[in-house]
Amino acid sequence: MKKNDEFFMEKAIELALKSRHEGNEPFGAVLVKDEEVVMTGENKVHAHSDPTYHAEIGLIREFCSENQVFDLNEYTLYTSCEPCVMCTGAMVWSNLGRMVYSVSHDQLAEIAGDNIMISCEDVIERSPMKPTVEKNILNVEGLKVFEGYSFS
Amino acid sequence: MKKNDEFFMEKAIELALKSRHEGNEPFGAVLVKDEEVVMTGENKVHAHSDPTYHAEIGLIREFCSENQVFDLNEYTLYTSCEPCVMCTGAMVWSNLGRMVYSVSHDQLAEIAGDNIMISCEDVIERSPMKPTVEKNILNVEGLKVFEGYSFS
Repeated sequence: MKKNDEFFMEKAIELALKSRHEGNEPFGAVLVKDEEVVMTGENKVHAHSDPTYHAEIGLIREFCSENQVFDLNEYTLYTSCEPCVMCTGAMVWSNLGRMVYSVSHDQLAEIAGDNIMISCEDVIERSPMKPTVEKNILNVEGLKVFEGYSFS
Repeated sequence: MKKNDEFFMEKAIELALKSRHEGNEPFGAVLVKDEEVVMTGENKVHAHSDPTYHAEIGLIREFCSENQVFDLNEYTLYTSCEPCVMCTGAMVWSNLGRMVYSVSHDQLAEIAGDNIMISCEDVIERSPMKPTVEKNILNVEGLKVFEGYSFS
């Protein structure tokens, strides 16, 4: 069976739920190459006392440094929520090939209040490297992760 | 003697030069609280095989996690160059109180070509937390770091 975007997004959403249950923020990510998961990521801001430890950038920095990989052009990153400017920047600097998200930035703002109000598309449009973007995959399931949630 | 912005910026610029000499990109940063340097940072993208390891975010994540500090409201970060969206995002998420830079984003683009063309002010303006910003401190000295430099 060919694994599709929904297959990998389901895993990213599971990680977001796990992250929430462990006392961090509810965001998860999965890095894929050739239809195989090569690394998973979770938000660990509280676990690591690191306000920059979002699921996406945490995954990117660990994958790149642990595997001595400096270019993610052949990789797809699945994330349960549209990335913030910090994480989108990390995707640009690592030359990520493709990014797929479920919940949008605007949906998140409606649920949890304002964050940094610049969409990932705005960042990518003005960047020298441009991952392609697929949005709102498993959106209903992605939104469920945030039920009863507000930014701490 | 009261240590002023120039005093700390000189150190950030020295670190940028050190970083360049060590084969990384020419950017340095210094974190200060109560007129004391609490941590220094250098770009280590090549040393760590981590394209996200910019001087500013690298410093923030290490300082916060090593010291179990989650809020930088009482800190000033000096950086030899205006931070990119990724690093500005890290400053917002860590609630940095104040940021001081030397070389501007536009000056860098003129020297080294386009990067992510969103200024730190654009990010901060749309953010829930807003570090105050002081710009172009020791600008002539900051620009010297880039002599003969282009993005690798």
